[in-house]
Amino acid sequence: MRYPVPAEPSGRLSDAWRFCVGTGRFDLALRRDYQDSLALVQREIGFRHIRGHGLFSDGVGVHRPYEYEGARRVLHSFTYLDQVIDAYLELGIQPFLELGFMPSELASGEQTVFWWRGNITPPSSWQEWAGLVRATVTHLIDRYGLDLVRRWPIEVWNEPNLDVFWLGADEAAYHRLYEITARTIKDVDTSLQVGGPSISPGSDEWMPRFADFVTARDVPCDFLSRHAYTSGPAQHVPFGVHQTMGPASGLLEQFATTRRQVAGGPLADLPVHITEFNSSYRPDNPIHDTAFNAAYLAPVLAEGGELVDSFSYWTFSDMFEEAGIPTSIFHGGFGLLTHRQIKKPTYHLYAFLARMGDQLLTRGEDHLVTRDAAGRVTVLAWAPVDVTGGPAVSGHTVRLSIPFRGESVFMLRSSVSEEMGNAWTAWSEMGRPRSPHPKQLDILREAAEPVRRHRSLPVNGGTVELDLTLDRHEVTLVELSPVVDETPPWWDDSRILGL
Amino acid sequence: MRYPVPAEPSGRLSDAWRFCVGTGRFDLALRRDYQDSLALVQREIGFRHIRGHGLFSDGVGVHRPYEYEGARRVLHSFTYLDQVIDAYLELGIQPFLELGFMPSELASGEQTVFWWRGNITPPSSWQEWAGLVRATVTHLIDRYGLDLVRRWPIEVWNEPNLDVFWLGADEAAYHRLYEITARTIKDVDTSLQVGGPSISPGSDEWMPRFADFVTARDVPCDFLSRHAYTSGPAQHVPFGVHQTMGPASGLLEQFATTRRQVAGGPLADLPVHITEFNSSYRPDNPIHDTAFNAAYLAPVLAEGGELVDSFSYWTFSDMFEEAGIPTSIFHGGFGLLTHRQIKKPTYHLYAFLARMGDQLLTRGEDHLVTRDAAGRVTVLAWAPVDVTGGPAVSGHTVRLSIPFRGESVFMLRSSVSEEMGNAWTAWSEMGRPRSPHPKQLDILREAAEPVRRHRSLPVNGGTVELDLTLDRHEVTLVELSPVVDETPPWWDDSRILGL
Amino acid sequence: MRYPVPAEPSGRLSDAWRFCVGTGRFDLALRRDYQDSLALVQREIGFRHIRGHGLFSDGVGVHRPYEYEGARRVLHSFTYLDQVIDAYLELGIQPFLELGFMPSELASGEQTVFWWRGNITPPSSWQEWAGLVRATVTHLIDRYGLDLVRRWPIEVWNEPNLDVFWLGADEAAYHRLYEITARTIKDVDTSLQVGGPSISPGSDEWMPRFADFVTARDVPCDFLSRHAYTSGPAQHVPFGVHQTMGPASGLLEQFATTRRQVAGGPLADLPVHITEFNSSYRPDNPIHDTAFNAAYLAPVLAEGGELVDSFSYWTFSDMFEEAGIPTSIFHGGFGLLTHRQIKKPTYHLYAFLARMGDQLLTRGEDHLVTRDAAGRVTVLAWAPVDVTGGPAVSGHTVRLSIPFRGESVFMLRSSVSEEMGNAWTAWSEMGRPRSPHPKQLDILREAAEPVRRHRSLPVNGGTVELDLTLDRHEVTLVELSPVVDETPPWWDDSRILGL
Amino acid sequence: MRYPVPAEPSGRLSDAWRFCVGTGRFDLALRRDYQDSLALVQREIGFRHIRGHGLFSDGVGVHRPYEYEGARRVLHSFTYLDQVIDAYLELGIQPFLELGFMPSELASGEQTVFWWRGNITPPSSWQEWAGLVRATVTHLIDRYGLDLVRRWPIEVWNEPNLDVFWLGADEAAYHRLYEITARTIKDVDTSLQVGGPSISPGSDEWMPRFADFVTARDVPCDFLSRHAYTSGPAQHVPFGVHQTMGPASGLLEQFATTRRQVAGGPLADLPVHITEFNSSYRPDNPIHDTAFNAAYLAPVLAEGGELVDSFSYWTFSDMFEEAGIPTSIFHGGFGLLTHRQIKKPTYHLYAFLARMGDQLLTRGEDHLVTRDAAGRVTVLAWAPVDVTGGPAVSGHTVRLSIPFRGESVFMLRSSVSEEMGNAWTAWSEMGRPRSPHPKQLDILREAAEPVRRHRSLPVNGGTVELDLTLDRHEVTLVELSPVVDETPPWWDDSRILGL
Repeated sequence: MRYPVPAEPSGRLSDAWRFCVGTGRFDLALRRDYQDSLALVQREIGFRHIRGHGLFSDGVGVHRPYEYEGARRVLHSFTYLDQVIDAYLELGIQPFLELGFMPSELASGEQTVFWWRGNITPPSSWQEWAGLVRATVTHLIDRYGLDLVRRWPIEVWNEPNLDVFWLGADEAAYHRLYEITARTIKDVDTSLQVGGPSISPGSDEWMPRFADFVTARDVPCDFLSRHAYTSGPAQHVPFGVHQTMGPASGLLEQFATTRRQVAGGPLADLPVHITEFNSSYRPDNPIHDTAFNAAYLAPVLAEGGELVDSFSYWTFSDMFEEAGIPTSIFHGGFGLLTHRQIKKPTYHLYAFLARMGDQLLTRGEDHLVTRDAAGRVTVLAWAPVDVTGGPAVSGHTVRLSIPFRGESVFMLRSSVSEEMGNAWTAWSEMGRPRSPHPKQLDILREAAEPVRRHRSLPVNGGTVELDLTLDRHEVTLVELSPVVDETPPWWDDSRILGL
Repeated sequence: MRYPVPAEPSGRLSDAWRFCVGTGRFDLALRRDYQDSLALVQREIGFRHIRGHGLFSDGVGVHRPYEYEGARRVLHSFTYLDQVIDAYLELGIQPFLELGFMPSELASGEQTVFWWRGNITPPSSWQEWAGLVRATVTHLIDRYGLDLVRRWPIEVWNEPNLDVFWLGADEAAYHRLYEITARTIKDVDTSLQVGGPSISPGSDEWMPRFADFVTARDVPCDFLSRHAYTSGPAQHVPFGVHQTMGPASGLLEQFATTRRQVAGGPLADLPVHITEFNSSYRPDNPIHDTAFNAAYLAPVLAEGGELVDSFSYWTFSDMFEEAGIPTSIFHGGFGLLTHRQIKKPTYHLYAFLARMGDQLLTRGEDHLVTRDAAGRVTVLAWAPVDVTGGPAVSGHTVRLSIPFRGESVFMLRSSVSEEMGNAWTAWSEMGRPRSPHPKQLDILREAAEPVRRHRSLPVNGGTVELDLTLDRHEVTLVELSPVVDETPPWWDDSRILGL
Repeated sequence: MRYPVPAEPSGRLSDAWRFCVGTGRFDLALRRDYQDSLALVQREIGFRHIRGHGLFSDGVGVHRPYEYEGARRVLHSFTYLDQVIDAYLELGIQPFLELGFMPSELASGEQTVFWWRGNITPPSSWQEWAGLVRATVTHLIDRYGLDLVRRWPIEVWNEPNLDVFWLGADEAAYHRLYEITARTIKDVDTSLQVGGPSISPGSDEWMPRFADFVTARDVPCDFLSRHAYTSGPAQHVPFGVHQTMGPASGLLEQFATTRRQVAGGPLADLPVHITEFNSSYRPDNPIHDTAFNAAYLAPVLAEGGELVDSFSYWTFSDMFEEAGIPTSIFHGGFGLLTHRQIKKPTYHLYAFLARMGDQLLTRGEDHLVTRDAAGRVTVLAWAPVDVTGGPAVSGHTVRLSIPFRGESVFMLRSSVSEEMGNAWTAWSEMGRPRSPHPKQLDILREAAEPVRRHRSLPVNGGTVELDLTLDRHEVTLVELSPVVDETPPWWDDSRILGL
Repeated sequence: MRYPVPAEPSGRLSDAWRFCVGTGRFDLALRRDYQDSLALVQREIGFRHIRGHGLFSDGVGVHRPYEYEGARRVLHSFTYLDQVIDAYLELGIQPFLELGFMPSELASGEQTVFWWRGNITPPSSWQEWAGLVRATVTHLIDRYGLDLVRRWPIEVWNEPNLDVFWLGADEAAYHRLYEITARTIKDVDTSLQVGGPSISPGSDEWMPRFADFVTARDVPCDFLSRHAYTSGPAQHVPFGVHQTMGPASGLLEQFATTRRQVAGGPLADLPVHITEFNSSYRPDNPIHDTAFNAAYLAPVLAEGGELVDSFSYWTFSDMFEEAGIPTSIFHGGFGLLTHRQIKKPTYHLYAFLARMGDQLLTRGEDHLVTRDAAGRVTVLAWAPVDVTGGPAVSGHTVRLSIPFRGESVFMLRSSVSEEMGNAWTAWSEMGRPRSPHPKQLDILREAAEPVRRHRSLPVNGGTVELDLTLDRHEVTLVELSPVVDETPPWWDDSRILGL
């Protein structure tokens, strides 16, 4: 079958896919490898916001009680907070603030989550918590200006519906935390944006109760947030897991749930942010390193913006320590990039999307077609995946008829697949070195670049016929540019030796 | 009094002062601010080695036990170790390795030191410890080559004579640790350099006992190491301390002690490394931020190389967390640089020394004079300090007669003092902002540059008379360069308007 | 006398001073030293446009006749034009286009100007000239977009009133050139801006005749342009000249002339651009290297914006070859910067102005006071100059009473003078090396930095009393910032040794 | 046929191929595009020396006569000379000095060569010429040190056997020029290296006469130099030429000639430098842009070092103006790189060679095999070319048996050909834009990267069988690295989805 592409756009392609990206804990942003990776991501993709845990955890050092003249006092210190946000802004990205976890000197218990021990207990003093929130938000406004800070969504806590993240998954306690936090923020400035409840999949019932709660008590709420993952239970091996995977459509269904849940109610028009999503929720599942992952997520990126205001890939970099310090360059981390900036196939899925125009021409189950102001037409196409574990299929075809003016177009095609633009494959051939030496890193970085092919395609009867055959788990970007022929009249290829 | 400077050098100026510099814990080297600071230090000073704690602490993630097929095994992982050492080498500095503290999964107890919790207990398995040492050294050789690694001194533990650093300050246990470690290292390659006992001031008796121990049991030992500080007990204020200070000569006496202790014995010819020194041993004493500190240490740097093979300033940067995350840009940290690369006066003391020639002409109680191959004469001079707390004296003079050829010399004088090249003073005038905003940082960085003055000085009778009047706690570098006059014969200043 | 500064601004400080800067011939912009200098200028000053000669001269290679199939044809080639304009835009500056001189293969004669031989004759074919103009403007629009190009003023030729620049200084021929050029440009797009007559001082009568001409024939004209210089005749020495100098007010008078000449006529409301100005019009007069030049021009920069829409300093860099290749690092070139980026005092005059606020508080004969949105008050002050050649006066005072809130202000004062921030003085002391070696260049660059002093000043009764004493030919920038005191209650300077 | 590769090297691979590279005229080195290109070349290839014309031409401004007190004097000015050589050294390359052409104010006639008008006449004063040479060499030693300058060969003039380069191709006059120059140089320092006669192909008889001349008169001579090209007469089209081409072996024959000519004589042991070579001697022959050129020159680079001490590719960059300013990004220029740093196939031939080991294993008519200290084996292979203009053949095979230890090797293969790594092909498909816009330049730079493929190859019986099939005019580099398998025992590809 050949899809006819309309000559004129049906609308704009939403950029919900680039509104936000996830990150490891806040203070990891102090690291050079992290910043090198973020710089690369911003140069080639360009996210708008970045969200991660641990803003208030001990490693950032904000909440600092001390004794003076016999009384407990609290100093709020922004040494590292400022270093991180300065770096973010310098790199062209803005925070999507998540308030949590609990500073250990403000905690009511000792329970922690992750290797890096984020404290998950409610505050021992609600007043001191409110003071912490107020001081932080006030400081941000002083330093960065209200115009900027009011564009930074502020989310209260992370996945309070799970008892690993919030003591006892105590819903009433979360509502209390949310209310105090939201009122404190609005007390600083009403134009600031606050939201929640930041729930993980599997507790959908929290959302309507949260909506009822804020409505009933008139608690400020500027957006709703939840997460989306499609992986099953973990089967462990040392330093890693394997998981079953549901179909990618499950992600789109999770995206759609929140708006459906609040439809018709007073929160129906609020923005909905998927503040985390990925295939697997584990930072040590090799799926994240594969071309499968890119082909699996391609339709989600192509369509997700129809359902929500943002969906934030968890995470941009393998500089991430929730399950401990990675023991190998490829270790199934969430990152679009490994340590040392090796690009994974899913990185390119995002980079491809970033090169597309913003005029939506058409969208199908295996392709997305756009145009830009200069008349360049871009096609993103992807191979099918089999979540039941069957072997990847090579040879899937996508055929399009694309209206075009002129006599020919220049086609540039960039591809990643199991074999193209796939550093993981090269790394396997190399013997899977855990800490590759510099020359190996250079080779891996080169191997991670998409395979690029170019041709001249004729325009016949105002149409370019584009026939794409896809490799195993291939994701491909085709860019078609109008040709202006400047060849001089005396040019004669046959006079050039060997042509 | 006017000092006559000899026309010819009496020898070379030792570069023991630049052999090594101290650093905060190993994994802080992953940070960008740290690396930015180190890059600056290396560009303007150029140390050869860098030494800090925590190579084996949990934040580096080397020692990684796991279970497989029912048994405990250990993976040694070098993900971060390699990132750090790659960065060091890229910045032109090599590690001075300190082996410690104990990985928590290898520890025999839960006692820790510092805010960042370095475990100070002996290993629960000496065999696993030896395995850790062997794997680490072997990996370094594989990755960086034996030629390089054999130039990296390896020190066993840190200040085992203090019970905060080594459980019970157990000397026999340290000797055991040393012996097992040293033998393991030599077993990998006999050309590797291993040493100890890395003691703090106040337990001088450990040194002869250590010497006896290694001699008696023929334990490998390639160098001896200790620390030197001159501060008294701490008087606490919130987030800081004040301390009394002994005279700077006390540092030189501490330097001299080790060689005196082992004189005449079998270890008499071993290199002696002062692997830490500073005025105060506290990371929160404002003295480190002052011009006092530079003037106080100037004679130590000028003369220390006569006594030991190296003395390592503790530390190059305020990126340091032993007492917690700093709450203010100036907080009395050890660093030559603050966070964000504001230079302290002691930074300039080092940078001045780095601009001096290597031919030693003369040295006095308030000056050091050298020459380089190109005939440039450099003078380092410093004002006296009063450790009893009296006010700083302005107006100290240093007068030198310096033999020189030609008709004139170009003099460039660079100075720091309480008022010149002193960002701390500017910061105080600004209201002591704890986290200065970017424009303030720019001003502070500018304020931290030495005041530079230049003049032409006549050569009369083959001699330049140099009269220096020093400001309060001034440290000054004078560079005298021969002038080759290229002024054309038609030049006439009086024809230039306003001259 | 003490000047009272008003509490509230009387208006905005015009930025006519930064609208444009001059440059050596077009193809010099291909050079690295040129681009390094421009990058520095843009970082610290930030001009909007740049204007120089030679766009159509042979070194740019635009007009390329050839024979094909027996006939003369012309290829218009933009290889270098694009390289230059790409570089300008990358550096954040836009062209102020000057169309000239004549491509030698389009020239009607062989007369040239400058060492680099710009052809100054009318075109041999007016049709080919129009083709050249049309092709160039069309190409610029294709490449850079009409939105951008319509912001680039296009000036027709340079100083046609001088026979060194235009054969016979033939006014009728210039009018013809102007008309054909202007009509051709407007034929491409009517929104493009074209103007002239780009006359030098001394032929003021050309302006009203130009105005009459364009009015009478309804020739497009979007702005009027002329030049301003105050130097007298040249007295030559090898590789240089000396000149007498009129008062700086003469520049302001020249600025004011055009608007006065066209007042009341149909061109009265056109923008007036001074497309070149400086003290001397010679590229080899040492005055350009001096502090005198900065103090001389300070009042012109402070007030010029009241009289014209722009006045363009001729030129930003000594990379300039009109009188041949410079034979010495300092040679009296026009540049704000020498080769190798040594800043001259006049550079700092511009950099100081660039740090001022845009709210005009007051202006006097020796000072200019502004404020910015953040409440920072900036004072530019300058010492008097004596154009009759008397010695420079030290000790001129400027006293201001400045309304301020709070308890204290932080004062940062940056100064250049005969001795401060003056690389030329240092270079003289060095023996005036013609091509300084890298270490000398480093010293000269350091010596060229303004002397910066800082203090805390008290606010008494809502007023800061600012007393400035100026050095010989000093130009000084004072920045007064409100202080927010964050000193903690336990702070005690007397506990810090030596304070 | 399968070639057996020896297990051990037969010797070292000469690096004569990287000893020197050619450049456009001296002052073009002031340009940023030139320096950007040279930086890239040095990073990926790394030549030792660089040689071009025009050191003494007017654009460098060295020879500057003036009048003072009634007499002619000469100032020697090094403003630009120093800028260029400083840049060279900063980029890690050293000059191969060519003394010429004649400064116009020292010339005896007005004859010039090239669009940029290099004066080709003898000096009007031999004394002033000697003064120019002496001043230049003396200055270089003062600035850069004798240790460095004595490593810079100094060649006297360029192709004096052609009357376009030396008035009347006057051999006696050249001998005089050579003698005076050589004696002047040795008079400054006898360790400096001087040589000639820098002849073009077609006047081989000059070489023995030059040898006789210097021998007979005992004129200093440290090396012999000539050029080598294989192209026939030019058939012109506008802005370009086509030429017939002799076989590549003709270049090797020209290389061999000089040593044969002086064999047995007193100059027999002198180094021989081919100070220019290429296929065509025209800067506007499209051959230089093609994969043909790379495949044609591959055997010359592989073997040339057996015949001469260096052979210098003419030239590294299209920033070159002998035939005027290029009118199109691809224009048949000599460069390894176009303006804007688009890599041509011949660039990669050099970059491939730069990645090879220095232990020579074997060499054949279509391949070269080396090894490095780490055991990496590299193979350079190339397809045959047909200089009679027949179409390029696809499918040429190269089969090698390579001894290897271990179980598998990692193979990385990088290729350029008519279709791979070929920006010229992409540019043709784009419509041959003469001045591509920035996005097109990005695409062209990407298209110019070699196609890289990687695989794991088994080692069977201690041997790797390498079968290469070559594309049209392909040049390919194969890198074979030993594999150390770090795959953990629990690894199971079948548990990874889609594998």
